Amino acid sequence: MTESTSPLALPFPAMPAIDGVALHVARAQYKTWDRCDLTFVTLEPGTVVAGVLTQSKCPSPEVEWCRAALTLGQARALVVNAGNSNAFTGSRGRAAVEAIAARTAAHLGCQPSDVFVSSTGVIGVPLPIDKAEAGLDAAFAAAPCGWEDAAATIMTTDTFTKGAVTTAVIGDRTVSLVGIIKGSGMIAPDMATMLGFIFTDAAVEPEFLQAALSKANAPSFSCITVDSDTSTSDTVLAFATGKAGNVQLADDDSVGADAFRAALADLCHQLAMLVVRDGEGAQKLIEIQVTGADSDRSAHRIAMSIANSPLVKTAIAGEDANWGRVVMAVGKAGEPADRDTLSIRFGNTQVAEGGLALSGYNEAPVAAHLKGNEIEIGVDLALGEGRATVWTCDLTHGYISINADYRS
Amino acid sequence: MTESTSPLALPFPAMPAIDGVALHVARAQYKTWDRCDLTFVTLEPGTVVAGVLTQSKCPSPEVEWCRAALTLGQARALVVNAGNSNAFTGSRGRAAVEAIAARTAAHLGCQPSDVFVSSTGVIGVPLPIDKAEAGLDAAFAAAPCGWEDAAATIMTTDTFTKGAVTTAVIGDRTVSLVGIIKGSGMIAPDMATMLGFIFTDAAVEPEFLQAALSKANAPSFSCITVDSDTSTSDTVLAFATGKAGNVQLADDDSVGADAFRAALADLCHQLAMLVVRDGEGAQKLIEIQVTGADSDRSAHRIAMSIANSPLVKTAIAGEDANWGRVVMAVGKAGEPADRDTLSIRFGNTQVAEGGLALSGYNEAPVAAHLKGNEIEIGVDLALGEGRATVWTCDLTHGYISINADYRS
Repeated sequence: MTESTSPLALPFPAMPAIDGVALHVARAQYKTWDRCDLTFVTLEPGTVVAGVLTQSKCPSPEVEWCRAALTLGQARALVVNAGNSNAFTGSRGRAAVEAIAARTAAHLGCQPSDVFVSSTGVIGVPLPIDKAEAGLDAAFAAAPCGWEDAAATIMTTDTFTKGAVTTAVIGDRTVSLVGIIKGSGMIAPDMATMLGFIFTDAAVEPEFLQAALSKANAPSFSCITVDSDTSTSDTVLAFATGKAGNVQLADDDSVGADAFRAALADLCHQLAMLVVRDGEGAQKLIEIQVTGADSDRSAHRIAMSIANSPLVKTAIAGEDANWGRVVMAVGKAGEPADRDTLSIRFGNTQVAEGGLALSGYNEAPVAAHLKGNEIEIGVDLALGEGRATVWTCDLTHGYISINADYRS
Repeated sequence: MTESTSPLALPFPAMPAIDGVALHVARAQYKTWDRCDLTFVTLEPGTVVAGVLTQSKCPSPEVEWCRAALTLGQARALVVNAGNSNAFTGSRGRAAVEAIAARTAAHLGCQPSDVFVSSTGVIGVPLPIDKAEAGLDAAFAAAPCGWEDAAATIMTTDTFTKGAVTTAVIGDRTVSLVGIIKGSGMIAPDMATMLGFIFTDAAVEPEFLQAALSKANAPSFSCITVDSDTSTSDTVLAFATGKAGNVQLADDDSVGADAFRAALADLCHQLAMLVVRDGEGAQKLIEIQVTGADSDRSAHRIAMSIANSPLVKTAIAGEDANWGRVVMAVGKAGEPADRDTLSIRFGNTQVAEGGLALSGYNEAPVAAHLKGNEIEIGVDLALGEGRATVWTCDLTHGYISINADYRS
């Protein structure tokens, strides 16, 4: 996979160290490649954790492991393997996760359930335990590294490293929130990213962290799609070390609760956008705003129907203001819609209104908008107050090239 | 659109004339192209009609016209326009359909509601009434033509003409059933083709014809998908002239009812397969068989999830036995599935069983199967008795090329 960097790439931001978090990377050589592919993150005692995981009915053993461990709410380590998702590998896959957790727990002197494990890559090949153990031992001995090294180590078909940072003021303390994430195919509704990891020094009750993460997930990771394909491994975990020394956030009435939630939502939004910007073959980032729907849920479904339509996505790739395909995608969503009240815009220019093309609309600003790499499609149904915004990318030859020859 | 012929093309069959049906084609010049684009079919008095139409919430005025006319159950003419779907064109689109029906009715001395109208092509451009009327006048004056000329005239991005034929014995008579159809993008569940027209000389009550067509539609047109995008114009109409002189089919107890239904189902299956064989960019026809599901409905949804997965379709394009993507598509369907009982085969070779890869399965027959152009994927869930079979094609660079530059 030597794809060139996405034209939508953003530079990796300056990200502060998070007190209580130490990063290490190593070479497990899950594939024959010249790069680190195992990330080992240590978390000081007292770290709490929350997570959102794939809705797939066929999840990886890592997802099942994390789902169980999340019920305890505490974490001492995170291990991420790149190059092999370990999904659909039966008891051998489960054994690999257990071995990684056990070895890490022995090294740190904690419980295996304090160790979170994620893997990403090809499905159906059991993660080789010997490589994982040798990689772990190398990571245990490695000097700490920075965020961008860790972000690079969790990548698979990603073309650029992805990180985001924000802060929140809680009482008299400023806490930091940072995240790293990877895509970039098999990205779809119901927890859309593959692997994302968020770290904060805030002191926060795990229940509050979970509620805040679940709420932040809804308009971010759950509102992006690259190809409508939902991964068996989708995972976002948020770790809070508590080292900032703020008065612990426990519920909605805690001082700074709103600020923390807003910061977490902002961070999730930033990370989700990075995933779409690195969608396989993406040349354009597409924001789809649906208003006037019967309900927010209905608006979301219509927006996702547009975002997942191959014909809409190829039209945008071709810089073609083919709003007829948007009508088609509204029509197929199965949600309440009235053809004769529907309005559509590209960028700020209305192109169809009240059920038909606006004759003589100015095509120049539409053409200029479509030549850019951030496209906005607005659909108003004029039925109710429901609204939703989702993000996707265009469908190009690059997607076919990447995916018609991935495993072989 | 000068795409080369699909490698999955079949030759146009020898199709008999149907007594009571006369075909004519003409140039309405809906686009600037050197071909006929208006098809005019006359049907002798006494012809009955049935139809299945798109489930889109934003249908074309032609679909609405046909839906209303179908309630009367009789037909004297069919007019098909190619190059402009007339969908999402407001009152001007409705006026165009009314003008076509009125002019044809005046010519034949029948009611406008006896005239069925279908259009296919770009969405959002009102069908020009002057061109339609001039085209109709030319068609009224034209000498009758054969089935392949009509099949060619209804095409848009299709790369080959599509027709099918069968017969049924009803009492002492043999009746003929023929059909022509066109695809080839925007093909998806809920009445999957764009335009298909079936003609028979059988004598049949319209209610029986409708019931037989609806039943034949379920496992044929409703079980194919090219790109998951449902057209605003999907239409299949079946016309029966009654000229064969059989004792009229009226209900399930009529002599020959089973034979007629079986023949109609066979014809619909043939036509549906032709649409998939001409799916935009298709290089391979893919049959997906799901067994052991919780119910037939659940099996259908899982099969369609596989058939619509860009990652499955690109893997097949790359001749890659990437069954992990099949697992992913099962998992995202949201239907009951147990990862640990799932089995998958390509062709006749099991590649995964009981939740994990079959170690040491023979890759040679799988590789040979995937190099062919008719691919079979079998998924057994081992949960119940539900089963479904659906058909799709692979996703290739050809699809992107065709659709990233269609309208402009």
